[in-house]
Formats: sequence, structure tokens, C-alpha cells
Amino acid sequence: MNTPVPAPVDVPTGRAATVPTPRPGDPRLARFALNQATVRPSTLLQAVDGCLRAGVPALGLWREHVADLGLDKAAALVRRSGLRVTSYCRGGFLTGHDPAPALDDNRRAIDEAAALGAPVLVMVVGGLPPGDRDLPGARDRVTDALAVLAPYAAERGVRLGLEPLHPMFCADRAVLSTLGQALDLAEEFPAHAVGVTIDTYHVWWDPEVEMQIARAGRGGRIALFQVCDWVLPLPSDALLGRGMVGDGHIDVRSLREAVEAAGHTGDIEVEIFNADIWAADPDDVIATAARRHVEHVL
Amino acid sequence: MNTPVPAPVDVPTGRAATVPTPRPGDPRLARFALNQATVRPSTLLQAVDGCLRAGVPALGLWREHVADLGLDKAAALVRRSGLRVTSYCRGGFLTGHDPAPALDDNRRAIDEAAALGAPVLVMVVGGLPPGDRDLPGARDRVTDALAVLAPYAAERGVRLGLEPLHPMFCADRAVLSTLGQALDLAEEFPAHAVGVTIDTYHVWWDPEVEMQIARAGRGGRIALFQVCDWVLPLPSDALLGRGMVGDGHIDVRSLREAVEAAGHTGDIEVEIFNADIWAADPDDVIATAARRHVEHVL
Repeated sequence: MNTPVPAPVDVPTGRAATVPTPRPGDPRLARFALNQATVRPSTLLQAVDGCLRAGVPALGLWREHVADLGLDKAAALVRRSGLRVTSYCRGGFLTGHDPAPALDDNRRAIDEAAALGAPVLVMVVGGLPPGDRDLPGARDRVTDALAVLAPYAAERGVRLGLEPLHPMFCADRAVLSTLGQALDLAEEFPAHAVGVTIDTYHVWWDPEVEMQIARAGRGGRIALFQVCDWVLPLPSDALLGRGMVGDGHIDVRSLREAVEAAGHTGDIEVEIFNADIWAADPDDVIATAARRHVEHVL
Repeated sequence: MNTPVPAPVDVPTGRAATVPTPRPGDPRLARFALNQATVRPSTLLQAVDGCLRAGVPALGLWREHVADLGLDKAAALVRRSGLRVTSYCRGGFLTGHDPAPALDDNRRAIDEAAALGAPVLVMVVGGLPPGDRDLPGARDRVTDALAVLAPYAAERGVRLGLEPLHPMFCADRAVLSTLGQALDLAEEFPAHAVGVTIDTYHVWWDPEVEMQIARAGRGGRIALFQVCDWVLPLPSDALLGRGMVGDGHIDVRSLREAVEAAGHTGDIEVEIFNADIWAADPDDVIATAARRHVEHVL
């Protein structure tokens, strides 16, 4: 007599899963990537182990977790694991009036990405300095900084993935708010040096999103595709409002199809900032994300 | 010997004012309009009295305050006051799957606007129905509803002012997120029937905002111009995050200049949703807004 396996439970809703969890080796997981921010409380070692147990073939890394372990050990760990490294998060914050500290920090991030074998450094370009209202000026400083960083990154085999952030972060995190605007900026540089990061959370509302995804594809500019959902109500910290795919209002499948039609057949990285998800068991988080990948992304 | 007049204090910061309060009759107040939402706890009678005391020549009305007094009394009150009525807030919420209730309600709002002498009914078009991910479908329903409402409004001398809302409200309040998108929709109808409402809070982040303001001007589509500021951090209720002009990151003057260069020489309506401002003395709110109009808008 078999012992009944308890039905898996979705994180963070606590509801019973509506599809079985795909098992390691399931071909539907071939392009599924976990961004480490989704299991932020886990160490890099724990995240790597979690991916291997669940059959997740690819992992996006964060600087803070790499720094905790040390760069050399982190690079050795991910190399040994056999996981593909999809991205390194993150560089940017280029809008300060003194460019020197940000340039130094971004050069270090590029060096780290190269050491880790990360093909893309995700760039969150920065918001307005405190008290500042000069949006065009801040955007100009981003362009100037990229002119320095793009060749530095390209020489090291790292691509800068400019990430337009949702316009609600324009003042404090990114003066780059639409995919069209990110492409305008990326196109000032060679495609192998500067591409764009397309995150469903940031772009889903944009009436031009499908057109701009097609444009990004034509130019060979899609460096990274990330998914999560928009859930209501927004939490008190807008940064933590992202939902598990399938729990909110974003038609993630349509966006995945658009990105794929534009020629991006690489990994699909799930990146979720959400306090309830971070409080859950990371194995349950990964399993839920894998189920949602099968149910709502593919 | 004169008794020293205490220096006025700004609302809601509590800091000393940096410019004197303009007095009634000051020509710099000629285009200054108060949207009643800025003094939301006040009744319509109190708001009218506050405007008259402060020398504010124009008032934007809200349905809830009008309903509290009764439509006929409200219409008589504003007519007697001599205040210009700049707008009526608001119609819209046209994205439900059954259009009938929203159409009925909007016809009533148009009738009320006509009775009040409001030239513009501000339209917040509505978000996605609960559980719905079909953004193009919701946008189509808005277009269909406007095809019914635009002629109804035009026959009554009321213009529909389509308001693109900040993309953070796309899921729950308005699937219309950019000025360009609002103009695309407005241009399906005659300019006297459908224009756009440009609110600095909703459009400031848009890399196309100046281009689209110019386009709106060329087409004679600017129905209403509203101002407030973007302050950090966002509050727990994103609806209440608006700041007094001058307290945040929006270059309101530049946007006012762009709107003016586009041919809009009408009233400039200050509309602020903010719990701290609503808790303050309404006379102080109006005085602060009038000072900021002189200091940061003109």
C-alpha cells in the first residue's frame, strides 16, 4: 500500500496546488530559471542546493549573496553545481552628481559578473538625487556613465541589461521607465555590449509593450526576461508588491509569447520581491514557482 | 504700532512659508483653481467660502460633495458665488463586463456637470475586473463606452476629459496609462466632445510627456490641467501619496510651460489626495497651495 503524498500547497496563498509539481528532468523546466531574490533569505549555497533538488537548471545571482560567501568561493560553487548563471543583479544607480563612486562600483560589479560567468549585469539606472527635479539631467548622466561602462563590460564578456523600472520607481530607483526608452538608450551602444532586461512587473501596463518587445527582438537587444505578477492591493512597501505568477493581473503568457516571437529562446527567470514569500519555506517557493511556470508561463 | 502678523506656515510640512501669501485680487491668482479633493473634508459651502476668502477664482467640483448638498442647491451656490467651475470629478469606470450600469451612471454625471456649468467631466476609465488579465479587452470596452457617452456629453455642452492615470493604477483604476494613449483614444472622437486631463502626478515620469503635451495642444485636446507633486516615500495607500507642489520631485513649472506653449491658457487646478493635508485647516491648505502656485507653478 502506498502512503498518500500530501497535495502540494501554493506559496504564499496556502491554497492547494492546481497542477502537479514538475519533477527534475521534466522538459518543461528546461528554460526555467530562479532569480535568487525570490528566495532572498537563503544563502547562495542553499539556493544552489534548492535548485538542484528541484531540477531547476539556471540561477540568477545577487551581489549581496555572493559577497556573503566570497567571490571566489561563489564562482567555484556555481561552476561545480552545473547550473547556468542567467544574470547578476545588479549594477546601476548612475544618477548621482559625482559619477566616480558609481563608476567604480559598477566596474567591480562587471568584474564579479565576469568571474561568476554571468552573461548579463542587470542595470537599475537610479532615480533623482534628493531634492532634485531635473529628470532630463539625470537621464543624461546615465547616458554618460554607460559610455564609460559599456566598453569595460564588453571587454570582459559581460552585457549590460538596462532595466526599465515601473514608473512608480522613477523618482527613487530608475529614471528609465519604459522599454522604448531603454531601447533608445541601448541603441546608442553595440548590441553585444548593451541590451535590455524585460521584467513583466515593470512593463505589463505599457500600451506599447508588444511593439517594443518586437523592436527589442529585431535589434537583438533582449538580454534577460524576468517574470512575476502584479497583485492588489499594493503593499505598504511598493518594492515588495510582486506576486507569484498567476496570482495577479499580468498576462505573463502573452508577454512570454511576445518575447519568444521576438527571438528570445533563453531562460525565463522568476524574480519576486515579496515579504510573505520570503517568510515561506524556500523549497515550497521554488516548487510553487515551477508549477506556475508550467501553468501560467509556458 | 502694528501688531506683527505671524509668518504663515506651510501645510503639511509645518515649515515657515518662503513667500508671502498672495492676497485676493493678486493677478498671479487669476488662473489658480482649487480642486475640491484638496480640501476633501470641507463641504461644498465651506470650499466655496474658502475660495472666496482667499481670492481663489475657480473651483473643481466632486460628485460626492455635490450629492451631499443636492444638485440644485449646489448649482445655485456655485452660480451665486461667481466662481468659475473648472471641472467635475468624475465619470468613467467603464471596464466592467456589463456596460449598462456604468453607462447609466456616466449619463447622470454628464447631466450633473451640465447643471453645474462644469465644462469638463474628468474620466477615470477603470481598471481590470477582479481576476481579469485581459488588458486589451478592457481597453476595447472603454472605447465602446465612449462611443455612447461622447455624443451624449457633447449634446449637453460637457466635454469628456480622459485622464491617463499613473501606471501604478493600471490594474485597479485606469487602463489608460499615458498621455499618448489617451490622445490615441480621444482622437477617435471630435475634439469638442473628448479631450484629455493632464495631471502632473500621473504623467511627469513619461519620457514622451513634452512631445505628447505638444500633440495634445495641436489637436485642441487639452481639457484640463491639474497639478500636484510626487513625494517620497510612497504612503501605504498609494492613492494618498500626492504632495503639495514644491515638496517633491516633479518639475511642475516645466510641465506648466509645456502646457501653456501648447496653447492651454486656462485654469491650473491643484488637486491633492493626502491624508496629512486633509487633516489640516482648509484655509491653511488653500493658502499654502496659493503660495506654491506663485513660487513653483507660475
